[in-house]
Amino acid sequence: MNLPRYLHERQALVNVALEAALPPARTKPATIHKAMRYSIFAGGKRLRPILCIAAAEAAGGSARKSLECACAVECIHTYSLIHDDLPCMDDDDFRRGKPTSHKVFGEGIAVLAGDALLTQAFSILAGVAPVKRYPLSSFITELATASGSLRLIAGQVADLEGEGKKTSAAQLQFIHECKTAALLTASVRLGAMSANASPAELENLTTFARALGLAFQVIDDILDVTQTSEKLGKSAGKDVAAQKATYPSVLGMAKAQKEAARLTELALSALQPLGKSAATLEAMAHHLLARES
Amino acid sequence: MNLPRYLHERQALVNVALEAALPPARTKPATIHKAMRYSIFAGGKRLRPILCIAAAEAAGGSARKSLECACAVECIHTYSLIHDDLPCMDDDDFRRGKPTSHKVFGEGIAVLAGDALLTQAFSILAGVAPVKRYPLSSFITELATASGSLRLIAGQVADLEGEGKKTSAAQLQFIHECKTAALLTASVRLGAMSANASPAELENLTTFARALGLAFQVIDDILDVTQTSEKLGKSAGKDVAAQKATYPSVLGMAKAQKEAARLTELALSALQPLGKSAATLEAMAHHLLARES
Repeated sequence: MNLPRYLHERQALVNVALEAALPPARTKPATIHKAMRYSIFAGGKRLRPILCIAAAEAAGGSARKSLECACAVECIHTYSLIHDDLPCMDDDDFRRGKPTSHKVFGEGIAVLAGDALLTQAFSILAGVAPVKRYPLSSFITELATASGSLRLIAGQVADLEGEGKKTSAAQLQFIHECKTAALLTASVRLGAMSANASPAELENLTTFARALGLAFQVIDDILDVTQTSEKLGKSAGKDVAAQKATYPSVLGMAKAQKEAARLTELALSALQPLGKSAATLEAMAHHLLARES
Repeated sequence: MNLPRYLHERQALVNVALEAALPPARTKPATIHKAMRYSIFAGGKRLRPILCIAAAEAAGGSARKSLECACAVECIHTYSLIHDDLPCMDDDDFRRGKPTSHKVFGEGIAVLAGDALLTQAFSILAGVAPVKRYPLSSFITELATASGSLRLIAGQVADLEGEGKKTSAAQLQFIHECKTAALLTASVRLGAMSANASPAELENLTTFARALGLAFQVIDDILDVTQTSEKLGKSAGKDVAAQKATYPSVLGMAKAQKEAARLTELALSALQPLGKSAATLEAMAHHLLARES
């Protein structure tokens, strides 16, 4: 399979769907719609929506029917980045090589743009086509749980509260499971649900996504230490400067790299029962382990 | 009908439902759940949820079946207050006579508590019992639209951008329709929908709610000028200090008072076709026009 081509094509599909799912930039009040679009179209890799689509395809469904789920998870991801970058949170000036929302629009509008994207996610998800095994309520509950106070937001809280304190490996895993793995897992699950996945398929894809999500975050932590800001498109060395607990700082670099490889293997083995239909997800997992930015 | 008793009973019902709908305060990470509960249980009048319940009852439904909708709108209302009070927005230190969320928990947690309540609103709404005329998607769309970038958030953006500038009566109406009337209208509509209201009932209740919502905001503007902080339980004279456009400042006090009365009459006349079943909503409208805090 040609992964770069697949990623490129699915990225384009997601971009077209997001373009249609958000109010035009000139819609009154224009500021908020410009701000929503600025962050949504800031050059993100669309990892979560593409995982969502690939999971739908792995479960025998279509990209088209998973697009509401794909766009909804990208809106959640983008809102969480806007709020995490605020001065009262991680205080980041750059994201994906561009000034962050509050640097461009001011803090008030950045808070509201995040709120608007969070709200829009559920508006988009309400349009998902119902399938036999999964009513609309299960889609809404899946996304709300993954992005709520017990998962995505819990991770940001634990992250904020852990700054400058000694963090155990268990606490670090809790933060990363919440901040990264929860939404990646919901992305995969929502895609599979849109394809009316069997309970067994959904379970295997869930195991895959959790392990991949953690592996992804371990690699993120490693890259923050080993790469330059230019290459990352965001401020490198930021975690160290903020005395944030990371896998390299808690486990040491060698163990962190081993852990990333172990988690990726775990993810790959969960795909085995799905056979050839999971080839794309398998290729994506290999690709994410090898990434350098 | 005994309105004070009705309000008291429905308030208690909403409080019990909200208590059950939010994670316990000790749930990890405790900070975010304490912050969510601090603002939800800060002594709000529960106007929106009670309107939701009363609309359900007016359309022949039950309080019990409208409770998901009632709790969801209160979560949205509370999140919007937390974010509006932030230093980068209206910068308010007191709300309902108590220190605002960011004064107690810090700005980062206040942003996240708002995010969490917004997310929780959709989680709660996903549990609404489906009715014949209105599928779950119509409930989600109703709430997401009223609280999204075209309505509730649009109002806050226009409000922020209008500070210190000359505002026309039309612009002021846009702000108040978005900031107040939109969520009040959604509260009433969601309640009516949970009761499987007929299209005619829903239309009349919508007209009622829009007019009531605007009247409510005009009165809020008037009270900011005429009442003390102590009586209001929040900083009085704040609008004037921030050079915010209000009905008294744009129309003059006499015209503002006349407008409040006119809108209340409009609201009441929309209830006529509903007959005796709308007696509670009628009493609430009278009560809101006469309020002093």
